Amino acid sequence: MPYQLRKNFKLFSLNSNPELTKEIADLLGCELGKSSITRFSDGEVQIHLEESVRGAEVYLVQSTSQPSNEHVMELLIMIDALKRASAETINVVIPYYGYARQDRKASSREPITAKLVANMLETAGATRIITMDLHAPQLQGFFDMPVDQLLGETILAAHFQEKGLEDAIVVAPDNGGLGRARKLANDLDVPIGFIDKRRMNPGEPETINIVGDIQGKNAIIIVDIIDTATTVALAANVLVERGAKAVYACCTHAVLSGNSVQLIEDSAITELVVTNTIRIPEEKRIPKITILSVAPLLAEAIEHVHNEKPVTPLFE
Amino acid sequence: MPYQLRKNFKLFSLNSNPELTKEIADLLGCELGKSSITRFSDGEVQIHLEESVRGAEVYLVQSTSQPSNEHVMELLIMIDALKRASAETINVVIPYYGYARQDRKASSREPITAKLVANMLETAGATRIITMDLHAPQLQGFFDMPVDQLLGETILAAHFQEKGLEDAIVVAPDNGGLGRARKLANDLDVPIGFIDKRRMNPGEPETINIVGDIQGKNAIIIVDIIDTATTVALAANVLVERGAKAVYACCTHAVLSGNSVQLIEDSAITELVVTNTIRIPEEKRIPKITILSVAPLLAEAIEHVHNEKPVTPLFE
Amino acid sequence: MPYQLRKNFKLFSLNSNPELTKEIADLLGCELGKSSITRFSDGEVQIHLEESVRGAEVYLVQSTSQPSNEHVMELLIMIDALKRASAETINVVIPYYGYARQDRKASSREPITAKLVANMLETAGATRIITMDLHAPQLQGFFDMPVDQLLGETILAAHFQEKGLEDAIVVAPDNGGLGRARKLANDLDVPIGFIDKRRMNPGEPETINIVGDIQGKNAIIIVDIIDTATTVALAANVLVERGAKAVYACCTHAVLSGNSVQLIEDSAITELVVTNTIRIPEEKRIPKITILSVAPLLAEAIEHVHNEKPVTPLFE
Amino acid sequence: MPYQLRKNFKLFSLNSNPELTKEIADLLGCELGKSSITRFSDGEVQIHLEESVRGAEVYLVQSTSQPSNEHVMELLIMIDALKRASAETINVVIPYYGYARQDRKASSREPITAKLVANMLETAGATRIITMDLHAPQLQGFFDMPVDQLLGETILAAHFQEKGLEDAIVVAPDNGGLGRARKLANDLDVPIGFIDKRRMNPGEPETINIVGDIQGKNAIIIVDIIDTATTVALAANVLVERGAKAVYACCTHAVLSGNSVQLIEDSAITELVVTNTIRIPEEKRIPKITILSVAPLLAEAIEHVHNEKPVTPLFE
Amino acid sequence: MPYQLRKNFKLFSLNSNPELTKEIADLLGCELGKSSITRFSDGEVQIHLEESVRGAEVYLVQSTSQPSNEHVMELLIMIDALKRASAETINVVIPYYGYARQDRKASSREPITAKLVANMLETAGATRIITMDLHAPQLQGFFDMPVDQLLGETILAAHFQEKGLEDAIVVAPDNGGLGRARKLANDLDVPIGFIDKRRMNPGEPETINIVGDIQGKNAIIIVDIIDTATTVALAANVLVERGAKAVYACCTHAVLSGNSVQLIEDSAITELVVTNTIRIPEEKRIPKITILSVAPLLAEAIEHVHNEKPVTPLFE
Amino acid sequence: MPYQLRKNFKLFSLNSNPELTKEIADLLGCELGKSSITRFSDGEVQIHLEESVRGAEVYLVQSTSQPSNEHVMELLIMIDALKRASAETINVVIPYYGYARQDRKASSREPITAKLVANMLETAGATRIITMDLHAPQLQGFFDMPVDQLLGETILAAHFQEKGLEDAIVVAPDNGGLGRARKLANDLDVPIGFIDKRRMNPGEPETINIVGDIQGKNAIIIVDIIDTATTVALAANVLVERGAKAVYACCTHAVLSGNSVQLIEDSAITELVVTNTIRIPEEKRIPKITILSVAPLLAEAIEHVHNEKPVTPLFE
Repeated sequence: MPYQLRKNFKLFSLNSNPELTKEIADLLGCELGKSSITRFSDGEVQIHLEESVRGAEVYLVQSTSQPSNEHVMELLIMIDALKRASAETINVVIPYYGYARQDRKASSREPITAKLVANMLETAGATRIITMDLHAPQLQGFFDMPVDQLLGETILAAHFQEKGLEDAIVVAPDNGGLGRARKLANDLDVPIGFIDKRRMNPGEPETINIVGDIQGKNAIIIVDIIDTATTVALAANVLVERGAKAVYACCTHAVLSGNSVQLIEDSAITELVVTNTIRIPEEKRIPKITILSVAPLLAEAIEHVHNEKPVTPLFE
Repeated sequence: MPYQLRKNFKLFSLNSNPELTKEIADLLGCELGKSSITRFSDGEVQIHLEESVRGAEVYLVQSTSQPSNEHVMELLIMIDALKRASAETINVVIPYYGYARQDRKASSREPITAKLVANMLETAGATRIITMDLHAPQLQGFFDMPVDQLLGETILAAHFQEKGLEDAIVVAPDNGGLGRARKLANDLDVPIGFIDKRRMNPGEPETINIVGDIQGKNAIIIVDIIDTATTVALAANVLVERGAKAVYACCTHAVLSGNSVQLIEDSAITELVVTNTIRIPEEKRIPKITILSVAPLLAEAIEHVHNEKPVTPLFE
Repeated sequence: MPYQLRKNFKLFSLNSNPELTKEIADLLGCELGKSSITRFSDGEVQIHLEESVRGAEVYLVQSTSQPSNEHVMELLIMIDALKRASAETINVVIPYYGYARQDRKASSREPITAKLVANMLETAGATRIITMDLHAPQLQGFFDMPVDQLLGETILAAHFQEKGLEDAIVVAPDNGGLGRARKLANDLDVPIGFIDKRRMNPGEPETINIVGDIQGKNAIIIVDIIDTATTVALAANVLVERGAKAVYACCTHAVLSGNSVQLIEDSAITELVVTNTIRIPEEKRIPKITILSVAPLLAEAIEHVHNEKPVTPLFE
Repeated sequence: MPYQLRKNFKLFSLNSNPELTKEIADLLGCELGKSSITRFSDGEVQIHLEESVRGAEVYLVQSTSQPSNEHVMELLIMIDALKRASAETINVVIPYYGYARQDRKASSREPITAKLVANMLETAGATRIITMDLHAPQLQGFFDMPVDQLLGETILAAHFQEKGLEDAIVVAPDNGGLGRARKLANDLDVPIGFIDKRRMNPGEPETINIVGDIQGKNAIIIVDIIDTATTVALAANVLVERGAKAVYACCTHAVLSGNSVQLIEDSAITELVVTNTIRIPEEKRIPKITILSVAPLLAEAIEHVHNEKPVTPLFE
Repeated sequence: MPYQLRKNFKLFSLNSNPELTKEIADLLGCELGKSSITRFSDGEVQIHLEESVRGAEVYLVQSTSQPSNEHVMELLIMIDALKRASAETINVVIPYYGYARQDRKASSREPITAKLVANMLETAGATRIITMDLHAPQLQGFFDMPVDQLLGETILAAHFQEKGLEDAIVVAPDNGGLGRARKLANDLDVPIGFIDKRRMNPGEPETINIVGDIQGKNAIIIVDIIDTATTVALAANVLVERGAKAVYACCTHAVLSGNSVQLIEDSAITELVVTNTIRIPEEKRIPKITILSVAPLLAEAIEHVHNEKPVTPLFE
Repeated sequence: MPYQLRKNFKLFSLNSNPELTKEIADLLGCELGKSSITRFSDGEVQIHLEESVRGAEVYLVQSTSQPSNEHVMELLIMIDALKRASAETINVVIPYYGYARQDRKASSREPITAKLVANMLETAGATRIITMDLHAPQLQGFFDMPVDQLLGETILAAHFQEKGLEDAIVVAPDNGGLGRARKLANDLDVPIGFIDKRRMNPGEPETINIVGDIQGKNAIIIVDIIDTATTVALAANVLVERGAKAVYACCTHAVLSGNSVQLIEDSAITELVVTNTIRIPEEKRIPKITILSVAPLLAEAIEHVHNEKPVTPLFE
């Protein structure tokens, strides 16, 4: 891909996912901007830009993944440094937007942290957001600047198409993600189902009901985020118990907190397909987990934005 | 209910739903604020407050229902008048928040009108929003002021509980509203299902699949908004065709645009239960449609806010 | 006029006055930007940009004429769509700025809607305003972004100069528009007068007094806006009754609400000269009314702004 | 007038017009807030509040009269001090709002300083404006906070009513102030006229034309501001030359710059009636000039605002 | 101290220093507000207010000490929750304001993180800041809301006065903190000195010079923050080597990062006096370190603010 | 220096220091922008830009030196004119930033005027600040736009290096400016000292103590601002009394208010070296005062910013 970048283009990485940024830089054929992002002895973030960004169109890659607060603050401080150093535009590429699940008052007297972070980014000086698979599409409206949201679903669908699974069915592991399941089912041209849970009375165990026909099928569970993996592992186990031939799972954002990797290892899941929006450390890279790269998609999006070409083809 | 209101409490109505505001005022035992909201000969809105609001805690009731643009502008102009007339706080009660469905970029290069309206309300001078059943709960995060969202589902559930339907099942008419269906099913202690539609190839007819067991059941369809009624009417007809005993439908917001009422009349729906968040004109009040009032809920919410009591019990 | 436009120039129309925008586009030698501006079944505005505006310098033409609320909201929603679609600048051309007469608290506890609309435009994301004949020049100060105000008076003066009326006198129909009358009188090199009305006691009829000598003269009444036409029609009739030879009238903005056209038809006015800042529907185009186009003036202003040439020569 | 003030009421003066503030304090029966407003040796303003304003409802009186820049900056700095010292509200009483005549771009590439000052007041932390006779009423819309505008015309009218002039006519000295003249003429129940000036060709002398019948009449010239006094003095001389019996003049704001007082002394004006919105130094207090106090009007307005009573009766 | 608190007073703690908040609550005689501040499994902050704060005047205590990013984010999220839950005012008590040393661009292309955090607090919704010993007093100007800064120096001075050291001299350990040293020397009525360091040529060792007479004296080193303790330990050692009888050190903010405690233990310092603005964990509480509580000072400040009494006496 | 400036570069002067701006223009090889900055008869500032600035990158030079309020207001009004005339960027060059010493609440209930002025500049529309020797470096953080701060110290050091003084010592005249003294001492490779003053008891005279060895030395006093000159003159006299061979003094900003020049003339100072950030009128140019120009430094900074080259080398 012979991308054309103008002289004032700069790509900077922060600490959440330097491998991904490096991969993007290689695809774009550019050097990474030089900066020093370290810590003072008391843990405060210390940032120094080691090259001029005066008049530059800066792209800054940072997932606000675990440890989220560290990564959010690092990002905000970097934006402040860029703004004060006279960057022309500050385009923030957030492959995984953390705190996205705190996007409403689930019960009263709760914060809406996803909006708080959006406000912080605007106040600090970001001028554009490029992100992937927001937990709810409404999060675009948390910003008043342009937001380009890319979807990992295409990458995941391509993987399963290539695999050529027969007798597949896409299953949403609860009643919230049917839209995502519908989209993957369309791309794979297969039926869908979902898992319905309810608790009759407080204290009683939850009743699990599979809605849709999964007998002898290859079930593919899709979610946007896998965090503790309990929902996905439970769903997989139930599907197999109740007659599925095999269970595959996929997601864009592999948070994989706590003992989630063990849970996956121990579950009925045959293969878990994820992307690298969040950096997955060596110890979590078990054979069952297949990692697909979003770098080609992000590189292309950055190039389109830089050269003012439409980004639409990338997510439709 | 012997509500205690302080002297600086004022309740004003605008033109979208004066009957509802009147009902609220009666429940609160207060007079409506005096204002003249008319039109200049060229149709521009002309507002004059006919009593002082200096230092007042004003509650202003307006649904931004059809004609939405007129109702939105009327609301913004009224807020401007109140602000310039030195109202202490401007609490905007929006039983139906119009444009709520334009809450994300469904395809590229679209506006997010629900956020635009939220920004307009903040800029004009609103200090608090009280609303009901936002199309997506994330819309709370479109505001940086306090938002109290009430839910019509309790009112609807009470109606069906009183009715005492046997063999009921709650059905979501598409894959987007399962959360709402789940909540009603919990309150009624019955199972749920949903209707899955997909089109195999462009040009081919849509395949409709009912997920869940509706044989011989009294199906209750629930959605937040009924607009053209095509989705609900189609769902009802299919449910009956495929074996449901009877079909009931319910929603909080009865937009009922175009020939929706005729569609309902002609459909397999036995009873459509709605609330009065949107004023329903005489000609749309057919026998099949039961209208429940949200005035007691809104009156209580206003009183709680006014007296700084928690609003939580009203929506949990 | 061989105008030079750069590649990122885009001109979009909205629904208030597509003919005028088309005329401007033809004069500039450019295509109109493609967009779909329709309504959902419940009347909510639905906008979709059908071409990329990423990095574009967008000019958007919309008079906020009757129905004002529809046109204002359409404009705001379009600005939101353009902003979120990464337009570089959003230059709003408002030939007729509606609500301009609500520019102060005429009596207490009224809104200042002209400022509210200005705030809405700023919040939505407009970056420049190009407009014509603001009702009061102070409205420029309602904005903190650049405002280029063009004047229709030159177009009107040219018409009367060409006509070569003898024994002319410019007459202001009340005591508020003497400045405008003075300017036209200067251009035509003729004297001025005005019509003074007062009511001695409440209930008594208004006394009308013509200040200035109109005997045997061709009186030319000038105002910025003709709305109900009662003031102008009354003035014309009184002028003829009291000795004027003939009465001509002119204005930039032809609101022509209610039965104003009939009133003009029935009045002593010989010719009413207006511009097309507001689209005049076929049924109002009576022979007495001459319509002059502002398109050449607006096209030139847009070109000057685009090419960073001074706009001053166009309004001095 | 037994005004009731709450404990947290504070009235502060700045340096433009301490006599007026003292008079207001006496009428309200309150002490002036203690503060030291001095200069550093290089002329920078030094402000120290000598009593706590924590939680106070502060009223601050300052005309931004000559030297305007000093008075504007003094006001802004005081507001900053009050805000940082935790005043609850900062109500700015500006009897004369300087820079009010720079309220539009009279020619291109000019500032709109009246809006700039409004923005400065908002940014500094003012929460309300009380002012008198803004040069154009549209200036209310330069603010997004409440503005209470009082009118000096009533005070001036009362003076002439008491005087009992016979055969009076109110005359606007140019074509811009007819509205104000109309209002005084209504109150005095007399006719109006105006003075029309025009220059046929550049270089030729201006032609002066009196529109209206002033023969043998007592002419009363009214304007909002008398600055250089050339317009008023010229008008008075012409009126007497052309047959007026005597000429009176009046205004709310007596700027009286340069040699204006001498000009008035030498003119045909019999009496010039002004108010004390601007402090008039001893040397300008010639016998021809009558000074009326606006303190009772301002005191009443302040008390109404403080006690949340409508201010409307004070200016209608 | 029988403090009077109104009903709507609420005091909440966050996780940085719950012991200090508890001590303040005890002094004020109030309960701590109930809230749950936990973590999701991926480390994201989860906050739930367990009591209503509608209309409350909330005081929130959080030092943004190590881990700073966690504590800053926790604070911002809590403010968001309080704002959305309709707290009337949100008074943020920050005993130690972290990132305070990033208060200027020390070299080019650096952030000013102390300003960034101030902007974040304003955007999130804080309405007042109460803090202690800002690293530079100019940080007050980073906020546009009221800031009450208390000084620990009085507490430290009282300790040394009580101790009754003879032949004391206050020493600033470098050329930046002479103001603070001057103040303590005034309170103790003793002379001052400072330690001057310079490096002749890059690569050469630093030359240390003691300015002032410390022979046989009890030197008291004062700084605002002790972080790595290298400066203080070195200063102490040099002072003893060059003739001081004994060396005491004191500071308000005991960051004590890395192996600072060991450094102090091993140094010539006899006693290090600090306050509890930052929570000092058990393992750092060595006998050499004396911890004084700021709770009485903060409790009094909170009570003064709450009851709108001047805070001035507390820091002068 | 063959500077390359693009066509849209414009340099404007205001009234504080036209000679300096002219010198900068000559060094840059450009014409000064044409504007008229005069006064109305009542002293209000009247600005008219006499050439188009549409799309221009404007640099505007103004020290907010005495009379500060006039110069601040002139600057703000000019920025407003430039913004409304569609300047692309407004780069404000403030060689001397007045009110810089009001940068914190020195005692309670004082304004922070340096922040107020920063807020005013942002609100008016400035997009970048270039300044010299801010009184405290923290003032950079008063702005959220880029600030480039240049240092006069290099210019002063070069002067003394050229002079070749032997046995020199740099002396800070009080305990606040040791950092600045340290930097000059480094550049000149000489030792430092400072003057310590304290008052034992209120009413008693101040005790002056020289810390550091000045016997037979050429003392060089350095400060950022010389205003009344009392501190510097006193320091010089004491230094000579106590054994210094000669005393030189230097500063960047020569405010020289009141009778400061006489004080310097009468003092033991041999030479006072200042820069022309503030215009020094003829009558203050006594032989003892050497004036160095900052024009080359500012010209270079402007050129670097204009051509997006790093400014860092200019102040390191």
